[in-house]
Amino acid sequence: MCGIVGYVGSGNATNFLIDGLRRLEYRGYDSAGIAVYENGKINIEKKQGRLVNLENELKKHPLQGHIGIGHTRWATHGKPSDRNAHPHGDCHNHFVVVHNGIIENYLTLKKDLMEKGHVFKSETDTEVVAHLLEELDDGNFLSTVRKMLSIIEGSYSLVIMDSSYPDTIICTKKNNPLIIGLGKGENFIASDIPAVINHTRDIYILDDEEVAVVKADQVSILDRDGKPVKKEIQKVTWSAEAAEKGGYPHFMLKEIFEQPKAVRDTVQIHLNKDGSVTFPDLGWTKECFENIDNILITACGTAYHAGLVAKHYIERFVKIPVSVEIASEYRYSKPLTTNRTLCIVVSQSGETIDTLEALKEAKKHGAKSLAVTNSIGSSIAREADHVVYTLAGPEIAVASTKAYTTQLVALLMLALYMAQLRGTISMDLIHKITDGLKDLPKQIEKVLKEKDHMAEVADRLIKAHDIFYLGRSIDYAIAMEGALKLKEVSYIHAESYAAGELKHGTLALITADTPVIAVATQDAVSSKMYSNIQEVKARGAEVLGIGYEDDKELGKYTTETVRIPRVDFFIAPILSVIPMQLLAYYTSVKRGNDVDKPRNLAKSVTVE
Amino acid sequence: MCGIVGYVGSGNATNFLIDGLRRLEYRGYDSAGIAVYENGKINIEKKQGRLVNLENELKKHPLQGHIGIGHTRWATHGKPSDRNAHPHGDCHNHFVVVHNGIIENYLTLKKDLMEKGHVFKSETDTEVVAHLLEELDDGNFLSTVRKMLSIIEGSYSLVIMDSSYPDTIICTKKNNPLIIGLGKGENFIASDIPAVINHTRDIYILDDEEVAVVKADQVSILDRDGKPVKKEIQKVTWSAEAAEKGGYPHFMLKEIFEQPKAVRDTVQIHLNKDGSVTFPDLGWTKECFENIDNILITACGTAYHAGLVAKHYIERFVKIPVSVEIASEYRYSKPLTTNRTLCIVVSQSGETIDTLEALKEAKKHGAKSLAVTNSIGSSIAREADHVVYTLAGPEIAVASTKAYTTQLVALLMLALYMAQLRGTISMDLIHKITDGLKDLPKQIEKVLKEKDHMAEVADRLIKAHDIFYLGRSIDYAIAMEGALKLKEVSYIHAESYAAGELKHGTLALITADTPVIAVATQDAVSSKMYSNIQEVKARGAEVLGIGYEDDKELGKYTTETVRIPRVDFFIAPILSVIPMQLLAYYTSVKRGNDVDKPRNLAKSVTVE
Repeated sequence: MCGIVGYVGSGNATNFLIDGLRRLEYRGYDSAGIAVYENGKINIEKKQGRLVNLENELKKHPLQGHIGIGHTRWATHGKPSDRNAHPHGDCHNHFVVVHNGIIENYLTLKKDLMEKGHVFKSETDTEVVAHLLEELDDGNFLSTVRKMLSIIEGSYSLVIMDSSYPDTIICTKKNNPLIIGLGKGENFIASDIPAVINHTRDIYILDDEEVAVVKADQVSILDRDGKPVKKEIQKVTWSAEAAEKGGYPHFMLKEIFEQPKAVRDTVQIHLNKDGSVTFPDLGWTKECFENIDNILITACGTAYHAGLVAKHYIERFVKIPVSVEIASEYRYSKPLTTNRTLCIVVSQSGETIDTLEALKEAKKHGAKSLAVTNSIGSSIAREADHVVYTLAGPEIAVASTKAYTTQLVALLMLALYMAQLRGTISMDLIHKITDGLKDLPKQIEKVLKEKDHMAEVADRLIKAHDIFYLGRSIDYAIAMEGALKLKEVSYIHAESYAAGELKHGTLALITADTPVIAVATQDAVSSKMYSNIQEVKARGAEVLGIGYEDDKELGKYTTETVRIPRVDFFIAPILSVIPMQLLAYYTSVKRGNDVDKPRNLAKSVTVE
Repeated sequence: MCGIVGYVGSGNATNFLIDGLRRLEYRGYDSAGIAVYENGKINIEKKQGRLVNLENELKKHPLQGHIGIGHTRWATHGKPSDRNAHPHGDCHNHFVVVHNGIIENYLTLKKDLMEKGHVFKSETDTEVVAHLLEELDDGNFLSTVRKMLSIIEGSYSLVIMDSSYPDTIICTKKNNPLIIGLGKGENFIASDIPAVINHTRDIYILDDEEVAVVKADQVSILDRDGKPVKKEIQKVTWSAEAAEKGGYPHFMLKEIFEQPKAVRDTVQIHLNKDGSVTFPDLGWTKECFENIDNILITACGTAYHAGLVAKHYIERFVKIPVSVEIASEYRYSKPLTTNRTLCIVVSQSGETIDTLEALKEAKKHGAKSLAVTNSIGSSIAREADHVVYTLAGPEIAVASTKAYTTQLVALLMLALYMAQLRGTISMDLIHKITDGLKDLPKQIEKVLKEKDHMAEVADRLIKAHDIFYLGRSIDYAIAMEGALKLKEVSYIHAESYAAGELKHGTLALITADTPVIAVATQDAVSSKMYSNIQEVKARGAEVLGIGYEDDKELGKYTTETVRIPRVDFFIAPILSVIPMQLLAYYTSVKRGNDVDKPRNLAKSVTVE
């Protein structure tokens, strides 16, 4: 999400840091800052807003030195502001850090540290790292860092300076990327390759829990036990443009492949060690629900489809009736929303105008409100009473992929949380599903291996003019998203149908020329689904089935089948959408479309 | 709806009557009967079920005579049964009648007649006509009939025998068809031309309120004031097949043109003279709604689309939240339906299995239930606690037209009735809308004049592969039905979208090759709708707008516009769907499709 850079050498650190951050700008950010060692101490400049704000600040207060770190922040804990921008120092800026990721136990640590007298300047989880280092400081930079690492929990890339070590940066990572660019008499640190590509094409790619001690003329890397690691130097052959996409040909594909991480981050932040679910920021109790008669979910496009899945989750777990409304319809519908309604809005950008206005309309009727968004400090996040953030990171491709799957995760966990508070389902079921969520990133990785398979299927779809997506129950909601994805990037007229509804009219369109994608993960209706597949096959349609790897029936009725691992059927949607994302992607590529910027569409729709 | 035949001559009356009824069988019926004068009295045989049941009965008890009347019944008042089958006689079978239509004041008349000692044998409205004739009998058949006509209210074709006049049948009609076939020494009466076409091609077509006195060698026709009318003989040149379709090339077109009558019948039965609304069979009071928290509408296909419109009606008028669910989805959704839910199901045939099972599921959860259907005695009518009938008459074409518009009328009036009971809207608004409903048949006739215009537009659409239907609010629900109609019969991939939602993805599909149909009758969102029209026009799409004749703005943004009369915006949907029906019809014809029996589809879907 955030961008990280670091420099040790004989050149002007500030010049590299600003240049490196600029090369990461495309990923989106809300504030930026650098820290440079000069005259015996580490000085920090940081500023909310665009990089140019920081540069203007640096014109007034230049930082001159040969070692430094920098950061562009994309808010997760604490709203965008100068104070919350990185780098963060301890009480005396003895240790200064930049960080990408989430320190999960930061609240406990922060409380401890404050009791010991540490004064915090920001609302971030990152700042605890600096104070913890200060607290643990044994005079040895590396040893202190390793002690700190044994205490913090979560995911991170961390880059650290120690004012007692004016020639050394220490960095480490876990479930977040970090690379070291190897120069001549200078070395570079970055979260992403584009930041260093103009300076060197020799890099080390750090593995999880490795610790690198970086000096101007030496990089030593240790494993989690402190033993030296012999890293191979990777040669980067990518162009600058390819580097921005992490080597993927398009952002959409990159973001599809970022889903294991995006989902892991979103799961972790709401999971207690005991397998229960937590949304501490909401401050909700069981009693809150005595004043809620119904839940309204309103959103647009992909986020609306996430809402349709959430209706299943909430009604099944929380036993409160849910209506899901298209935001542009809801806002003009003279709704019957009351002060006993909880309105949930979903928007990746947090700026979707239809959704924002629908939220305002619901609030006007007295509704309590909660936003699920990917953008801290966005208009919708500010308008809603409560906010749940998806930790998808910046999404660049217009067609949403990782934002959608993290919306599903956030909404599933929110439903579990409400059920846990109300006691409407057993803790056993909650544990069963949260266990599944813990495994989910690995399961997504398995499904991503269907990449080449989906590329092959795409070869056969590119000539199709019409494609129908069928499902029942939650699979129908997922089929709607699958169809939308294909529409958006391939421009093929895809349409989704509740499989049982097709025969009430639209079956007239089904012929050998209309391929059908059939999702079948909902066991309670799978036999009905097999019948519906046979209905379309009898009309000549080729059917691509999406089902569990152990579903022996499905393959009997489909032309071809793509398999997902056997998971709980509430989690299955988060897996089954992935082959459809890949299919949309490859169909678009093979038709020669501009995948990341499809015609007529905008990423954040701020017009009605 | 029902089939009527009559015979006067020297031949065997029974033979003609049975043959004539057989030729009307295609229209659907639930029972049949004939009455023949023999040996000084009129004898009746009638039987529930297929015509063959009646024939078997006649083998046991043959009716031999030269004058008689016959009827195939399609139930409206009283369930299908032997007793409710026509013909109906008075206490002594002195007068015997067959009837098509509705006697609106039959309950009052029946009460009066019972007080005077008349004994009724059936639950029908028709039987009051026979008893009323008996009561009014002045010894002169024609004079008695004319007295009776001055008392009854409603719509009818009536064919009457008087046992004192063994050579005469008197018949009359109002808002229902009736023809007289002219033979040599024999004459034929029928509701529809196919019944007589094998016997004669010379016919009189009776006009409303004309009375015909039919003998073997003479037919005299009088106007409502009793003055002789000089009728022209019409030569029928239709084939037998064309005759079944009333001269229309397809049932679908015939049924589109039957909408003024279908709507008039459906309106009249629920309208009080003072402009208030009545559903006496429901037995509802204001207090009933104290036990209703929410309303669930569940249905399939076209009926589901009627439900989506009804949500607007009910929420706006009755202020009770409505959820509309696809029946095949609802039944497996483990719903939160309770005994405080009113479940409304909608089905033309009353046999749609998904809808029937959804109804059973809702009842299992304790819901109160009401069915809106076109078929008395159907499975759904029997399963529901209450039934509201649409009086569309038999619908033969697979693609529903008049059943849909009568569903809209019935649901609109039901919403008004609930609001009237609850006092949630003013009587002024109720009167305003019921005034509009009274005018509606005439307004539909005006819109039907767009026939040739729609045929021209169809010429330009037949090459299209994809067509998008847009609307906001109620217009969106209507756009869904417009798109489904086109899909069903033209096999063009039509899809409807809430106009404000298009930009959230599907706008990528809009090019110069995707015509757009834009419905704009909802004043509150018309300026938003104009913007959405401009969005698609900017991408090159040709736009056919459907709007009011006095909407001066709409035409500025559309490529072409079809106009409907200015009516209340709650009534507008019932008009604005008609051009879309015509468009679907002509597009199908011009593409050479089997309009009445589209591929892959069935009229009554009794499989899952």
